This record gives sequence, structure tokens and C-alpha cells, in this order.
Amino acid sequence: MIRVVILGFGNVGQHLHKVFHDTKEVHVLQVYSRNTTKASLNNTETTFTSKITDIDKTADVYIIAIPDDAIKTFTAQLQLKNKLVVHTSGGVAMDAISNKQRRGVFYPLQTFSKETEVDFKIIPICIEAEEGNDLKLLRKLGKSISNKVVDISSNERAQIHLAAVFVNNFVNELYHISEDILKEKGLDFELLKPLISETAKKIKTLSPSKSQTGPAKRGDTATIEKHKSMIKHKLQEEVYKSLTKSIEERK
Amino acid sequence: MIRVVILGFGNVGQHLHKVFHDTKEVHVLQVYSRNTTKASLNNTETTFTSKITDIDKTADVYIIAIPDDAIKTFTAQLQLKNKLVVHTSGGVAMDAISNKQRRGVFYPLQTFSKETEVDFKIIPICIEAEEGNDLKLLRKLGKSISNKVVDISSNERAQIHLAAVFVNNFVNELYHISEDILKEKGLDFELLKPLISETAKKIKTLSPSKSQTGPAKRGDTATIEKHKSMIKHKLQEEVYKSLTKSIEERK
Repeated sequence: MIRVVILGFGNVGQHLHKVFHDTKEVHVLQVYSRNTTKASLNNTETTFTSKITDIDKTADVYIIAIPDDAIKTFTAQLQLKNKLVVHTSGGVAMDAISNKQRRGVFYPLQTFSKETEVDFKIIPICIEAEEGNDLKLLRKLGKSISNKVVDISSNERAQIHLAAVFVNNFVNELYHISEDILKEKGLDFELLKPLISETAKKIKTLSPSKSQTGPAKRGDTATIEKHKSMIKHKLQEEVYKSLTKSIEERK
Repeated sequence: MIRVVILGFGNVGQHLHKVFHDTKEVHVLQVYSRNTTKASLNNTETTFTSKITDIDKTADVYIIAIPDDAIKTFTAQLQLKNKLVVHTSGGVAMDAISNKQRRGVFYPLQTFSKETEVDFKIIPICIEAEEGNDLKLLRKLGKSISNKVVDISSNERAQIHLAAVFVNNFVNELYHISEDILKEKGLDFELLKPLISETAKKIKTLSPSKSQTGPAKRGDTATIEKHKSMIKHKLQEEVYKSLTKSIEERK
């Protein structure tokens, strides 16, 4: 049985609490959140605290799920000593955690929102730890919820996080721009949803290189010029140009 | 029974042939392709020709599925008169079709590849025609394979096609860039696939505006600067900058 305390109860904290609660090998002793209104735990095995001084000192691992820029200050305030403290962030190095603790990382490579259920079994868990035994424990913890647990250094994780920004935040911004483009003519964004699904689905079995089609790929300058003339907003134009150039240069 | 001739047998032509062949209300009389090696029809109700002079003259509708830039020249060569001739392209206006015919458009808003099965039921079919009766026939034809048939003018379709480039070609290019970024450190693109799926899935129920997260959204300039310093290639940097700016400006 791995005893866990979850520190922070936003999207990641809540999803982790839920999946660990449903996992036989894990006992979530406690959830900490400075925001008491979030304390809707719905179970008796886990206590809740909003006081940093009341954090349970008997856990095997403390999992921090708070905003990136708060990790450093928060871990410096923890009244724990030489405990395994891990954060869950893609963008933050392991050494942001106070060196009074045994440091580690438990990064589920996924986007979480309150509205959506997630299947942890398919989410890669990227783990890192200073000590060998801690890495073993994190691997065991990861395997209790996911089929894919990988050892990833802070350097590698920074690279993964950069790549993740492209396929998550930037892809979503492209969805947003296309919604704007349709709205301008009173057209419904719903029309594009099957195309959005299929584009993402294709990549499961076909490489991005093999999947590519469209005007930039086939060097159709007439269509590219027509598109540029249709775009009304400078920022949209910059996005159009930079991605068109990126596709063209691959040839 | 709607009698159809399909002109062109690439990805779109083949998928249309397959779905119409499986549809009781439609009879595919003939498939034309200048490339005879493509003639693997596997059914007896449809003949094949590679000669433009042998195209069957008794169909209710002729569906052109050839490259965009060939539509104009090709339809001028057709030895048909006053027939309903439609193309299947998002990026081409209806009047690219020779005016010797009754012109129309039958545009399935989806990306097609040989490797992937598609479910036409959920694909929006955008139709347009010069004459009311032809529009009715295209609507009937569309409804025989899809639950979503919409009247879309050439102007609107151009706008949809522009938006489609953003969510299909450009999204795929972002997948490609992120694959490049991972490869640089010997990391496996497979790691990102659950995130890619979830990003596309989220948009089904949540608006792009509500789905957005990440450094640009939360104004995390430290991470943005770190990312910029990690990017080695000028084109990737331009893509990073233009999309970051586009997210930032929404605030």
C-alpha cells in the first residue's frame, strides 16, 4: 500500500485523487488545498486540510499539483523533512522543489479539465527522482494507474513540454482561429468538428509527414495567395504565413 | 434511384464510389480515371473507362474528384451537354466548371486517405447548384450517405476551406514540428499521442476559448522565454512566436 498526500486540488489534483482513490494499491491519506470550498472529497478514507501546518507527516509520497510558478515557494514552506516530494509539472525542473526533501517528479502527460473524464491507463507518466528507491516507488505508483510509465530527466521533460505546447495549446489556438474565421461569415464551427477528429485520429497510425495534404504541401500558390487576401486580421495572417512556410520548407 | 458517374479515382473518388456502392438509392453507373491501373472496382454494377470519350451519357449527376487545378480544363473537355456536373472541392468556385453543363458542388468536408475508413454519416456535405431541381437532387444524394447536408455558397465554401486549412493542414504541421522537437532528444512521438487525442476530443464539448491552457494563456513569460531559447530552428521559432502572440492578444 502506497500512502499518498495530494497537495493542491485543481484539475490535476482532483483527477489524481479520483484515480488513486479507485486504486487498491494506493491510499490517499489527505488532500491539502488552501481553498476550503474545494473540499468535496466524498469519501471517508481521505481527510482534508487547508492548513499547511496540518499536513500529514506519515505519507510515502507527497504529490504537488499547484501552479508551476508557486512550486518553489510552496515547497520551501512545507514542514516536512527528508520526505519524497514530487511535482506534477511538465515545465518545471525537479530542483524547483526545496532541497530539504527527497525530490522527484510525477508528470502525467495529459491535459486535464474538470468537465472531461480521463483514462489514466493510456496516459504516459513521466517520472524522475534523485534517489533510486524513490524512483522505484514512483514507478510502482505510476504502474498502479497507467500502462505507460517512463523515466524522463528534467532536460528531456522540458523538451517534451515544449513539444506538448505545440500539439495542445497551439493546436487549440488553431481551432480558435478557425472558429473566428467561420463566425465572420455566420458559419457554424460544428461543421469542422468531424475534420478535427479525423485529423487527430489519422496521426495514430500515419506519420505527420505522410498525413499532410493541402495547398502548401502541393505548392498551390494560387490558393495560398487567395487565402492571404481573404484573411482580415494581422495575427491570423502571421500564423498562416509561418505555418505555410514551415510546410513548404519540408519539400 | 440516382444514377451517378464518378470522374476521377483518387482518395475522394474511391471513398465516394465505396459509399455510393453500399447505398441502395444510388447506382454508380461508371467510374472514369485516366489511370487504368486504378480500376479495381470489385463490383459488377459499375463499368470503368479511362477514355473521356466513353463517359456514360445517361447519368443524373457527374461527380468530379480530381485535383483542384485540373477541374477547369477537364470539364471543358467533357463530351456532355447540359448535364449536372459537380465537383467535390472546398477550394474551387462552382463556376470553374464549364458553362456547357448545369453546374454544382458536392463537397464532403473531410480529409480522405487510402489507409483510413471514413464514416460518411457524420461528414457534412456542402452542396451548391445553379438550378433549384439540381440542388434538390444533390440534397437527396447527400442525405443518402450523410446526416448533415448543408447549402453552402461558393463564397462561404471558400471561407470554410480557409478555416479547414487551419484545423487540418496546419494542425498536422504542428504535429510534425513536435515530432521533430522530440526526435532531437531521441524521444518517442508516441508519448504525445494521448495528448493529441484529448486535445481534439475536448473541442467536441468545450469551446476553443474555454479549452485553452498553457504559458501564453496564463502570461507565463518565463516559460515562453525558456521555450524560445530551446528552439533551434528559425521556422519553428516563427510558428512559436506567431501562435503565442495570437493567444496572448485574446486576453
